[in-house]
Amino acid sequence: MFPGDRILEDKAHEECGVFGIFAPEVDVARYSFFALYALQHRGQEAAGIVTCDGHVAHVHKGMGLVSHVFDEDNLRYLKGHLGIGHTRYSTTGAPKLRNTQPYVIETLDGPVAIGHNGNLINAPQLRRELLERGVGLSTSSDSEVIIHFLAGAGGSDWITRIRIVMAKAEGAYALVILTRDAIYGVRDPWGLRPLVLGKLPGGGHVLASESCAFSTIGAQMIQEIQPGEIVRIGADGYEIVQGAPPQQLAFCTFEQIYFSRPDSLLNGRLVHQTRQKLGKQLAKEAPAAADIVVPVPDSGTPHAIGYAQKSGIPYSEGLIKSRYIGRTFIQPSDELRKVGVAMKFNPLPENLKGKRVVLVDDSIVRGNTSGPLVKMLRDAGAKEVHVRVACPPIRFPCFMGVDMASQLELIAANMSVEEICEHIGADSLAYLSVAGMMKALKAEGGYCNACFTGEYPFTTQIPLIELQEKEKFVNVWGN
Amino acid sequence: MFPGDRILEDKAHEECGVFGIFAPEVDVARYSFFALYALQHRGQEAAGIVTCDGHVAHVHKGMGLVSHVFDEDNLRYLKGHLGIGHTRYSTTGAPKLRNTQPYVIETLDGPVAIGHNGNLINAPQLRRELLERGVGLSTSSDSEVIIHFLAGAGGSDWITRIRIVMAKAEGAYALVILTRDAIYGVRDPWGLRPLVLGKLPGGGHVLASESCAFSTIGAQMIQEIQPGEIVRIGADGYEIVQGAPPQQLAFCTFEQIYFSRPDSLLNGRLVHQTRQKLGKQLAKEAPAAADIVVPVPDSGTPHAIGYAQKSGIPYSEGLIKSRYIGRTFIQPSDELRKVGVAMKFNPLPENLKGKRVVLVDDSIVRGNTSGPLVKMLRDAGAKEVHVRVACPPIRFPCFMGVDMASQLELIAANMSVEEICEHIGADSLAYLSVAGMMKALKAEGGYCNACFTGEYPFTTQIPLIELQEKEKFVNVWGN
Amino acid sequence: MFPGDRILEDKAHEECGVFGIFAPEVDVARYSFFALYALQHRGQEAAGIVTCDGHVAHVHKGMGLVSHVFDEDNLRYLKGHLGIGHTRYSTTGAPKLRNTQPYVIETLDGPVAIGHNGNLINAPQLRRELLERGVGLSTSSDSEVIIHFLAGAGGSDWITRIRIVMAKAEGAYALVILTRDAIYGVRDPWGLRPLVLGKLPGGGHVLASESCAFSTIGAQMIQEIQPGEIVRIGADGYEIVQGAPPQQLAFCTFEQIYFSRPDSLLNGRLVHQTRQKLGKQLAKEAPAAADIVVPVPDSGTPHAIGYAQKSGIPYSEGLIKSRYIGRTFIQPSDELRKVGVAMKFNPLPENLKGKRVVLVDDSIVRGNTSGPLVKMLRDAGAKEVHVRVACPPIRFPCFMGVDMASQLELIAANMSVEEICEHIGADSLAYLSVAGMMKALKAEGGYCNACFTGEYPFTTQIPLIELQEKEKFVNVWGN
Amino acid sequence: MFPGDRILEDKAHEECGVFGIFAPEVDVARYSFFALYALQHRGQEAAGIVTCDGHVAHVHKGMGLVSHVFDEDNLRYLKGHLGIGHTRYSTTGAPKLRNTQPYVIETLDGPVAIGHNGNLINAPQLRRELLERGVGLSTSSDSEVIIHFLAGAGGSDWITRIRIVMAKAEGAYALVILTRDAIYGVRDPWGLRPLVLGKLPGGGHVLASESCAFSTIGAQMIQEIQPGEIVRIGADGYEIVQGAPPQQLAFCTFEQIYFSRPDSLLNGRLVHQTRQKLGKQLAKEAPAAADIVVPVPDSGTPHAIGYAQKSGIPYSEGLIKSRYIGRTFIQPSDELRKVGVAMKFNPLPENLKGKRVVLVDDSIVRGNTSGPLVKMLRDAGAKEVHVRVACPPIRFPCFMGVDMASQLELIAANMSVEEICEHIGADSLAYLSVAGMMKALKAEGGYCNACFTGEYPFTTQIPLIELQEKEKFVNVWGN
Repeated sequence: MFPGDRILEDKAHEECGVFGIFAPEVDVARYSFFALYALQHRGQEAAGIVTCDGHVAHVHKGMGLVSHVFDEDNLRYLKGHLGIGHTRYSTTGAPKLRNTQPYVIETLDGPVAIGHNGNLINAPQLRRELLERGVGLSTSSDSEVIIHFLAGAGGSDWITRIRIVMAKAEGAYALVILTRDAIYGVRDPWGLRPLVLGKLPGGGHVLASESCAFSTIGAQMIQEIQPGEIVRIGADGYEIVQGAPPQQLAFCTFEQIYFSRPDSLLNGRLVHQTRQKLGKQLAKEAPAAADIVVPVPDSGTPHAIGYAQKSGIPYSEGLIKSRYIGRTFIQPSDELRKVGVAMKFNPLPENLKGKRVVLVDDSIVRGNTSGPLVKMLRDAGAKEVHVRVACPPIRFPCFMGVDMASQLELIAANMSVEEICEHIGADSLAYLSVAGMMKALKAEGGYCNACFTGEYPFTTQIPLIELQEKEKFVNVWGN
Repeated sequence: MFPGDRILEDKAHEECGVFGIFAPEVDVARYSFFALYALQHRGQEAAGIVTCDGHVAHVHKGMGLVSHVFDEDNLRYLKGHLGIGHTRYSTTGAPKLRNTQPYVIETLDGPVAIGHNGNLINAPQLRRELLERGVGLSTSSDSEVIIHFLAGAGGSDWITRIRIVMAKAEGAYALVILTRDAIYGVRDPWGLRPLVLGKLPGGGHVLASESCAFSTIGAQMIQEIQPGEIVRIGADGYEIVQGAPPQQLAFCTFEQIYFSRPDSLLNGRLVHQTRQKLGKQLAKEAPAAADIVVPVPDSGTPHAIGYAQKSGIPYSEGLIKSRYIGRTFIQPSDELRKVGVAMKFNPLPENLKGKRVVLVDDSIVRGNTSGPLVKMLRDAGAKEVHVRVACPPIRFPCFMGVDMASQLELIAANMSVEEICEHIGADSLAYLSVAGMMKALKAEGGYCNACFTGEYPFTTQIPLIELQEKEKFVNVWGN
Repeated sequence: MFPGDRILEDKAHEECGVFGIFAPEVDVARYSFFALYALQHRGQEAAGIVTCDGHVAHVHKGMGLVSHVFDEDNLRYLKGHLGIGHTRYSTTGAPKLRNTQPYVIETLDGPVAIGHNGNLINAPQLRRELLERGVGLSTSSDSEVIIHFLAGAGGSDWITRIRIVMAKAEGAYALVILTRDAIYGVRDPWGLRPLVLGKLPGGGHVLASESCAFSTIGAQMIQEIQPGEIVRIGADGYEIVQGAPPQQLAFCTFEQIYFSRPDSLLNGRLVHQTRQKLGKQLAKEAPAAADIVVPVPDSGTPHAIGYAQKSGIPYSEGLIKSRYIGRTFIQPSDELRKVGVAMKFNPLPENLKGKRVVLVDDSIVRGNTSGPLVKMLRDAGAKEVHVRVACPPIRFPCFMGVDMASQLELIAANMSVEEICEHIGADSLAYLSVAGMMKALKAEGGYCNACFTGEYPFTTQIPLIELQEKEKFVNVWGN
Repeated sequence: MFPGDRILEDKAHEECGVFGIFAPEVDVARYSFFALYALQHRGQEAAGIVTCDGHVAHVHKGMGLVSHVFDEDNLRYLKGHLGIGHTRYSTTGAPKLRNTQPYVIETLDGPVAIGHNGNLINAPQLRRELLERGVGLSTSSDSEVIIHFLAGAGGSDWITRIRIVMAKAEGAYALVILTRDAIYGVRDPWGLRPLVLGKLPGGGHVLASESCAFSTIGAQMIQEIQPGEIVRIGADGYEIVQGAPPQQLAFCTFEQIYFSRPDSLLNGRLVHQTRQKLGKQLAKEAPAAADIVVPVPDSGTPHAIGYAQKSGIPYSEGLIKSRYIGRTFIQPSDELRKVGVAMKFNPLPENLKGKRVVLVDDSIVRGNTSGPLVKMLRDAGAKEVHVRVACPPIRFPCFMGVDMASQLELIAANMSVEEICEHIGADSLAYLSVAGMMKALKAEGGYCNACFTGEYPFTTQIPLIELQEKEKFVNVWGN
């Protein structure tokens, strides 16, 4: 949002949100708009909607926030009774219009459009395979790779084609696909990224990365799409088929910890509730002798509420987060840089004065804001500051669709917990354990914890050399 | 923010935020930008900055959010060591570029610029006086009236001229004024709107509507400007003089209840703290037999925390507010309108199921969202919903710079508390009393409570007929 | 048009075009748009239209070409049955939105708007008079001065007020003025700038700087407004009254030579015809032994046709002028700068090879393109190049609304004709004489030839010192 | 340019202009910009430039005029020592950003970009072939087809690949192609569209649709690329090879008659000169007893000069064409529509009064402006009006890259010359004969005259059914 958000807010970044709708009775483009608005937190670089009236496809995409990309003028042209939408966060280089989604192509079977959340780990091989087949690629995106494999899959119907692509693609993908007469939702066999199915009260069905998009448009959740499943939504309602054999379930833990909106449902439980459980488990594992529990707002708030409930230490607001409206590219000057996190957070001294404070954060990535926040609390009168983090130390990069920072930047990959504690100037520091986290998630497995453990969910080794090669391909695009 | 925010969020609107800076050592335009960013909540229709290098004035203004109006290109041209800035919320008709502030004019004494927060109640007479003197007015704004009176005030120095204007102007005004060699802060004799003075660590002084702007740029609060005072900031530092005899102090209570940011200091106390006190007083006056206290986020949160602390009923989050990013002009369709507040708020059913809920809001203006929120809580499983409002019923319009809705729209001007309770479907409804509110504010007076009591702070009657006539003048501008 | 047009095309610049319309039967805004489109050559920096429906004024103004400033969206809001419009070329510093015209102000008698073509030579005194009366000025434009004097003129009707202003204003002005129920055209007592009156076939009347605007909207010319006259157009048709005693007529010769469109009527004769006469007179005064007559297109074409007809030497195209479309701010690089006029003009070698060429231009201002053009003709094979200029040497600056370049830049103010001939590398060079020019114009006087003779049309000396002081006032605006 | 240009100016439309440059010493992007500026007449809907620094490709494209699409900001990013550019006029449906050129794709051999002028007649088959190979197409453009065939051509070098594509492509194409280390120019075996090679004085070579682009950047013409040839420009200079066997030469006659700029060289002769020859031949074939020869400006001017020279009847300007600046989307109202061509052309009555006029136009397409122009001349006093057209009647549509109007709209496809004469109200009407046109072009063949004769240059029948099918494919794009 803010220049240096990476500095002022120490968070990982989700890469995308997807939405799909088949609903003859409503203004499909308008519904897509409001659903994408609700999924804005999953990607703020670009947005797009494609609709279809059974014959031709209509598309509008652009750089910027959903509210910036769409207006009444361009919505009007998005006619039809089925549509898909996408919000995008870009990880590689300068964001570019040509990388916006959904992608649309013409095939022998009519227009096809795709919106993708995730990252393929075998994208370099797939790109090479396409290039060797003489398909020129016009972007550096995995999603273009998927759509060209779809176009070239052969097969007599779209479910067959999608299965052919699923057999090839390794990695994280939650897809929405639009054809002339149906929309499809597809979730990778590991279930890395979320995808949910809902219905509209007046008829019609919807797909979304998160159920919060349903609330916004008055839809009701039916179920989560399961790993490896394909859902097809057409004039006859929806049907779900297995597209690829499900693998060892590996849902992204970070969706629970930070990414998803607290009012979304994941694995049948409200995310807000789950985060309170994480906070409670943290209180059990890492108690602190303190007077108040203070969250790092807003993302740490549910965890802090849970910590307070479990520990019996009163919950209190101690930091106010500026609700900056709109994004700016204005750079702070050198003097302003010194002000640092104060541009984003202000303390509430009355609440802090003379208190021993437990500061609860959902996660620490680079570790560059924790120190200034601890100092801010002390300057505002806090006697002690005990930092508690509602997930384990993040030590490994993500190749499955999350912009987690490189390994060199991850503070826990380079320092012990004691060193970090000293580095940020806290009186004590504790992270939630992996086992405790799983317990709070009521899970004995089924999650991808690679960023904490380095154990990636794929049976084959992560081909790091190939991933680097992927970068080389990206380099044909200078801008 | 959102089309129909008036519907989806039932709040009054502040009209403006002002900022001033005299600081030879820093990039004055950049500081002004970040300060206005922090004052964005006070006005989101337009923004402007004027700087001066001792000789000529540089100005950039535009429609939209601060982050939209300014970029590195236009900031670069705002040279100089003194500057003022303004964010604007417009109340009359379509917002227009020509009404953006600060205004800048040429006078015999060099360029003068002005930024204004407030509303003059004798503007129609003052406009007529100017027109009769043959001064053609190019906007419908009170602020243009003030600057023309300044230009024509005569007098040997700016403080004299400002005093002449203060003797004429009746109503609310917090002003920042820029001349060739100094900036001035002026607060009306009733102290209706806030204005604070601060200093920069590396030298230089700043003025702002609220101290939160200081935190953002690393400045420290010195003091609030007192009613009727003029502060002049120049090369020799600052001096404060009385510009007009102070009247019966009448600071806008709504700044405490809703407008100001919780991390701002008003009357020497953090607003967040004051709001907790209001909530505590509300708990004393209007207890409820309930299981949890739930705020209407975000503005009702501190009040709810106070209510929970005083009542001993646990605080809990029960509603999530969508952090819509960016504003949209897309209108909901009819089906989407039925979804209503669900586009802005989603419930957290696990927290609500089977619970007797105290729903705490800071204020109710039109009363059109309270009903849907009560229903939403019930649908999510709440057994009872007791609505508590941390201020008295709003029954009268504001003529001093707040867009409170017309009297016809104010629900409490048209219904009794019992009727409102039934209207919104609550199990019980209670407002804070005026006396209790004053107690929480540690005040025996000194506040303008006109919107609650109808007692306007001016000795003369509010010339309603004249206010209507003002509308007529406005009508020379068709767009 | 083009960066460095001052270099690539060596021309003086007109400062403005004005238009007015009173026509209950037609879409007044749309007519104004097309009329301004036809007057685009008189000013390309900014454009604006103000309309009135008898009660309120509607205004839209913006930077750029007429076609850029207006679209269907903003035209739609310009309602009413009377309107005025303006195209602007700016001479002082960076062009600014606030200096766009028409100006609109509120007065006791309703909205008043003004569009102005010309320059007041006593503007500094008038500005001071306003500032001393306490009127703050918000632009550096003469036109704002005029509108404030109008607003403060007193008087019982607008004609009286306009007369009061005319008694004060010294200099060049063709004005269109809009009030609630009428539009007014005003021409200064010297008749320096043109203003014509026309009628629409379906009822209603129009005013314009040039009659070419009438052809574009299907209006017919009635007459030219005479020096010192005021025309009022209202519901009862038009009436013309004397606003100030006419002075010694001093119409700008440059309108005949270069500014006005060839299809406009000036002094009862088509400009194209007049320019042929100038060319014929030039052939009489300055014959040349040559094989072909070649114009510098497009402005020198009619003069060259006249020269060819009189001299009997065949007319031929020898240079093609690039019809650059749209303006660019891209700067040529150093290598490209060397290409010079070739970016604007290309030769037609087949027409030139071995020929003795008479190159006819309408005027030479700075003299920086004539040399490269002569060289281009020689390089394309011309044996001799004889330059003939259809007006006298320009030696003095203009203070009456033309951007003629400063005296230091005028080549003929600094070199003799012989020196210029050598400087541009021509075989011979001749200018039209002042007497010959007057003869071609069928005039024994009645023209302002100050740029040729230094004899300004005002009985008082041109107060140069004051004009410099005017610059000082301009300097309160840094941007 | 102007809404209803098709009405106000009765002309065919060229589809594209291309440019290429390999020049290590200069700012390649800036040169491309000015060259495209000079080629603006060949396409005004969109423009784009791609550059390469030997490794990665940089691209900027946009809708609108060249001057609108590029600014210093985006030019700065177009780094490298080789580049290609494109201006585009769109024929099918609403112009769209995704159809802008050059196209850029990634291949196993690095980035490849293409700019295309022309139209393939076997595009539907080629599209189907690609789709059957599983290549999804993302636009409706022939040019995307070409680039995908290039990408999939196999072959060890680019010349081999281009030859493979040339063997498949039937129709009109002048291509510029960019690879990592060279640019290529390709001209179809029929030589339908022009392509010329030039050199820069400081080193480096350039390609362009027309030589006028060379003059603008100071380059010198080397030669025209011959039908079927490929030119490769790299670090070692240029080489020309035969890419496909040349077919019966069929250069587009309309380039000579109307499209190309008069200062371009085609077939070794200046277009201006060629047009004079066409006018002379017209005078021989279709003399008229008249007093003056008047062109329809600007395109008919050289033809009229030729007619005048041959016939001995004096040349005169009789119509002034408004130099509308910038394009507008404002629609004339009904009253304004009646004004008709007067919005674009104004007569010069003094030149016409009592005269028998020969009105020379370069071509008549739909025939809808000739009538109003004849009437305008008569209304201005012309005694007789004899229309002479410098090409034969246009009776057939073009499938090779020109937007000529559909056959239903072509007046000469639906009326005899006598009927047209009566329809436009002329005293006489004559067209140039095909034989006479060829004679004036000094050609016994070698031109495509299909629009006059219906004899298309391809040995196979024009597959009209397939062309209609192409439309069907286009229909997958609703917008």
